[in-house]
Amino acid sequence: MFKKILIANRGEIALRVLRAARELGIKTVQVYSTADENSLPVLLADESICIGPPASAGSYLNVRNLLSAALVTGAEAIHPGYGFLSENAEFAQKCEEHGITFIGPRPENIRAIGDKASARRVAQESDVPVVPGSGALASLDEAKAFAAKIGYPVILKASAGGGGRGMRIVRSEEELARNLANAQEEARAAFGNGEMYMEKFLEEPRHVEIQVFGDGEGHVMHFFDRDCSIQRRYQKVLEEAPSTLDTALRLEIAEAAVRLARHINYRGAGTCEFLVDRDGSFYFSEMNTRIQVEHPVTEMVTRFDLVREQFRVAAGEGLSLAQEDVTVSGHAIEVRVNAEDPDRDFRPSAGTLTDVHWPGGPGIRVDSHVYAGYRIPPHYDSLVAKIIAWAPTRDEAIARMRRALQETVLEGIKTTIPFHLRVLDNAFYQRGAVYTTFIAKRMQG
Amino acid sequence: MFKKILIANRGEIALRVLRAARELGIKTVQVYSTADENSLPVLLADESICIGPPASAGSYLNVRNLLSAALVTGAEAIHPGYGFLSENAEFAQKCEEHGITFIGPRPENIRAIGDKASARRVAQESDVPVVPGSGALASLDEAKAFAAKIGYPVILKASAGGGGRGMRIVRSEEELARNLANAQEEARAAFGNGEMYMEKFLEEPRHVEIQVFGDGEGHVMHFFDRDCSIQRRYQKVLEEAPSTLDTALRLEIAEAAVRLARHINYRGAGTCEFLVDRDGSFYFSEMNTRIQVEHPVTEMVTRFDLVREQFRVAAGEGLSLAQEDVTVSGHAIEVRVNAEDPDRDFRPSAGTLTDVHWPGGPGIRVDSHVYAGYRIPPHYDSLVAKIIAWAPTRDEAIARMRRALQETVLEGIKTTIPFHLRVLDNAFYQRGAVYTTFIAKRMQG
Repeated sequence: MFKKILIANRGEIALRVLRAARELGIKTVQVYSTADENSLPVLLADESICIGPPASAGSYLNVRNLLSAALVTGAEAIHPGYGFLSENAEFAQKCEEHGITFIGPRPENIRAIGDKASARRVAQESDVPVVPGSGALASLDEAKAFAAKIGYPVILKASAGGGGRGMRIVRSEEELARNLANAQEEARAAFGNGEMYMEKFLEEPRHVEIQVFGDGEGHVMHFFDRDCSIQRRYQKVLEEAPSTLDTALRLEIAEAAVRLARHINYRGAGTCEFLVDRDGSFYFSEMNTRIQVEHPVTEMVTRFDLVREQFRVAAGEGLSLAQEDVTVSGHAIEVRVNAEDPDRDFRPSAGTLTDVHWPGGPGIRVDSHVYAGYRIPPHYDSLVAKIIAWAPTRDEAIARMRRALQETVLEGIKTTIPFHLRVLDNAFYQRGAVYTTFIAKRMQG
Repeated sequence: MFKKILIANRGEIALRVLRAARELGIKTVQVYSTADENSLPVLLADESICIGPPASAGSYLNVRNLLSAALVTGAEAIHPGYGFLSENAEFAQKCEEHGITFIGPRPENIRAIGDKASARRVAQESDVPVVPGSGALASLDEAKAFAAKIGYPVILKASAGGGGRGMRIVRSEEELARNLANAQEEARAAFGNGEMYMEKFLEEPRHVEIQVFGDGEGHVMHFFDRDCSIQRRYQKVLEEAPSTLDTALRLEIAEAAVRLARHINYRGAGTCEFLVDRDGSFYFSEMNTRIQVEHPVTEMVTRFDLVREQFRVAAGEGLSLAQEDVTVSGHAIEVRVNAEDPDRDFRPSAGTLTDVHWPGGPGIRVDSHVYAGYRIPPHYDSLVAKIIAWAPTRDEAIARMRRALQETVLEGIKTTIPFHLRVLDNAFYQRGAVYTTFIAKRMQG
């Protein structure tokens, strides 16, 4: 096992990595920007080293400074956390070139799955379904034929598009002609290019993802599923494990994810994200080649330490377990407590925490890098804490999370806790009737 | 289930009960002495009511005030926690007479097992071994015969004795004559009564206890074992589950505990304590008819909520599970963080907590009623927090607990955390070579 590693991240994930390292007897070097000098991982690490100014480009994204920090301190490996350089193949490559182990997938894994087109190809080669989509549509007749093949509703998208422009949801053949013409016109106006393609439109899909792990030697396994459907503007707000899908479907999706990861001989922790339609059809959307924010819900229901496994695989020790060792017990929910004001359109609410009190007792886990007196810097994401509740059943996990949030004190800033309580109190949420547009449809007013 | 209950206790156990109640949707009434007005359970409870002055006799032990508080607030049941009135049969009886459910065993359960002689009789009737002991010894010959029967070493004790006076450990027949005479003389001088009896002396016994649960309808089950051998002057310092005994022996002890509890048709949570000799012989010592301080280690390895089960049984819903549902997974350790100065012979260190920061991350649970700015009153026990660490193996649990204790900040008072770290660092402790005199023998100097 490594003797010393460098943590190339900040905030709660830096602390998560530090904890795993410390329990393994590994010394830690914590990097920090000048804005993070007083952060908890810096205070707790064995060594710390400043890598630049508050702006990430000069510090947490600064490959040269990070590599220098590792070389200067004699760190044998770098854990990139999530975000920042965690999915940067070039960084992974540079680490290896300097004789530093990158705790994550091989550069070629990241490249193979990194861009949308390549990921779609890998999925298809692995016999993993992707959302059915056409190439450029040459005519209305071609559009009709393709829609008839994949079934309504469909969504028209501009090949050159983005941001919703040139997009149309079409629910029947009657609507198609008019919508195609309108969308083409809109696209031409917006992008100077009216070329359109078509995808199957999923109404109220769930976001279900599979935690996978590979040892880079051909052995790939999964740690079952998470449901992350509760999103606000494509940002996950609350996650849980397992999903409320039926067991056979959950296993089918998990097996698809393993097939895909095995196809690229994946190494380390990764997450395959899927959209699940109401009829149980599921479609691969993307793979994240790093540890996820929401990994603790998987740790709570499987009781395995995923960051520890990352260290093992990176150190060449291989995974400590086999697929049959992994079972899901009970239910876990995580809320992302952000420094945002839910009453003012989730405006960031940086500032100094004047009082902090965490919830405790059975089934509660808190992952947070903040403390009383800590000033949240305005330069980074607004995540203040992850609070995770485990209980034997989903209903009990909801009750436990409500109880925990009611105990939590974070004074001096606004947080999203009141919003999380509203989600937990929502009857549709309680019933497990969740989908990616849940907040937009069920939580307004 | 109850709609409203009264919590007849203080500190961390009051909060533990409050949490379980809240998760079940039960309203809570928290009683408090004038010294506890600002305690966390008072701040968090739905209602609170003052029951008297700081001295426990006038408040937490004041049966009349507690009953009045329950009647005035319309609480249907009283949870007594541990200590105070939790093992008082008369209080349990009075509750029932006033139509209030006592969340605990029936008064006759408490009486049957409450005093030493009665408990010893119950054990013998249940075919559960007790430490072999003689009646009053009439002569040296009788003493010799009894010692030959139970085997050396033996311990001589004064029938009227206590506090170690008139006590002698005897390791061979040659030593017996002289020691008996000396002990008799010492007892006569101390108590005016030279009558002696003899018990088998256990060298370095382990303290192993079994968590049992009965529904009061004849169904009794167990939640396996805890090892609480690490004690300082008979006070538990650090507890763990499971014990490091071999599985067959652990099961044998657990079955003995169930036999005993079934014999008295036990209702609710209880703990049967045993001394385990180096040869694997085990002897019942006493039963605690309440929830224990160290119950969280059992909750961590079995993942059942014992306080929730107490509520279920008291409300007549019965246990939610059967024996075959209970399995032990991994290892849990609890340390009792006391407001005491380990460098000054564990002198109490009351005062105001100026800064509090709890550990977090995977496998860590914190049960504590204190917060930054809280003034620890000098009137009660010195328990400030219980920190519990779970991991797949005992070695990993030790590493995780060390990591957690290093993260913990409790400023303004002295705590026993440095002492706990010394125990965790001790090679004999790490090897599981523990016994009730461990601290006295292995932790000095």
